[in-house]
Amino acid sequence: MARRSTKVPRAAISRLIIYLRILEQLEHSGYDRTSSEQLAEEARVTAFQVRRDLAYFGSYGTRGVGYAVPTLGREIRQILGLNRRQRLAIVGMGRLGQALSDYAGYGQAFEICGFFDRDPAKQKLRFHGRAVWPVQQLAGRVRTERIDIGLITVPASAAQEIADLLVGAGVRGILNFAPEVLETPGGVNVENVDFVAGLTRLSFFMQPLPVGGEMRG
Amino acid sequence: MARRSTKVPRAAISRLIIYLRILEQLEHSGYDRTSSEQLAEEARVTAFQVRRDLAYFGSYGTRGVGYAVPTLGREIRQILGLNRRQRLAIVGMGRLGQALSDYAGYGQAFEICGFFDRDPAKQKLRFHGRAVWPVQQLAGRVRTERIDIGLITVPASAAQEIADLLVGAGVRGILNFAPEVLETPGGVNVENVDFVAGLTRLSFFMQPLPVGGEMRG
Repeated sequence: MARRSTKVPRAAISRLIIYLRILEQLEHSGYDRTSSEQLAEEARVTAFQVRRDLAYFGSYGTRGVGYAVPTLGREIRQILGLNRRQRLAIVGMGRLGQALSDYAGYGQAFEICGFFDRDPAKQKLRFHGRAVWPVQQLAGRVRTERIDIGLITVPASAAQEIADLLVGAGVRGILNFAPEVLETPGGVNVENVDFVAGLTRLSFFMQPLPVGGEMRG
Repeated sequence: MARRSTKVPRAAISRLIIYLRILEQLEHSGYDRTSSEQLAEEARVTAFQVRRDLAYFGSYGTRGVGYAVPTLGREIRQILGLNRRQRLAIVGMGRLGQALSDYAGYGQAFEICGFFDRDPAKQKLRFHGRAVWPVQQLAGRVRTERIDIGLITVPASAAQEIADLLVGAGVRGILNFAPEVLETPGGVNVENVDFVAGLTRLSFFMQPLPVGGEMRG
């Protein structure tokens, strides 16, 4: 039985997503049962962490027996809200928007239902049989297509304006690819896809350690 | 004076990256000085968190006076290893690889120095005046071009093979865009750019709260 807390750490949700992928791989490989130890090893965390992350939502598995793979997968999908389909719109059909329209890994829970661009040349293109709508039609189309989440793939200078349009049209979830911190009202969720931050973390962790030990003054 | 610990949490590094962006904006807006309170407000963390994140690396700022904006920016860039330029290669010149070749936000610290693809049609294209090399030449080119970081933008089914080639050629940093958990030896750093995880976190946080309070049984 799943319960839901308002105060689940974002990092715990990120780990649940990893556990779910591992469970899907295990199910695909024919496993019926698994354990917090096996999930932990695959996810590179501790078994305690796995049990604690699941405990936010209820009581799963049986001590000494472990978890039924398909059951736990179904329960995590329910926790994550993946049992209902989210309708996506991509705003900005440059190369990144086009790459995202091509992407094969969205799974069952996400469906792209709208493409938008400001450029009349882009509005002549079709993706998956769908027209690219002018940004001026965004508010109306978001309502008629019941868009849940907007993917912002416009240049940084236009990202806030697009976010405002999406929020004004009732969208409560934004996946932002632009290198720009968006301001949104409470109740709107924003996730930033920030690959330059990823490069910068690599830059940090790839530095040679200082000579002479763990720290230097 | 910067010192360096081997045990800095990844989340602290991610916050340093955000502080640096805020400092760059402040400098751009003509600010000379800032405070942990101002940085905290912009970064949506506490002032205590800002001071603790900086304390991993040494003593910065002056009590009651705050931080000199350009100095702290320079010090954080040094902490992050951004004072030396990292040479990047993009492996997989489909739409995503092309979008990344176009991207304008890499900054001074990252330079794209090689493009690779398996497809002979892609090898006829040029990006920023550069040829697209066959993947078979990857090991040799990585060495002659002194590539530090490989960006993997191939399909998931080919990602591990490309990672193995990069690691075999001496690359110690991988930015992985493929929806695939890569296995790499110790000493190799991998950052995953996982936008479906971002969508899934949105899916979780956008769920209506259960009726009747914070939790249900």
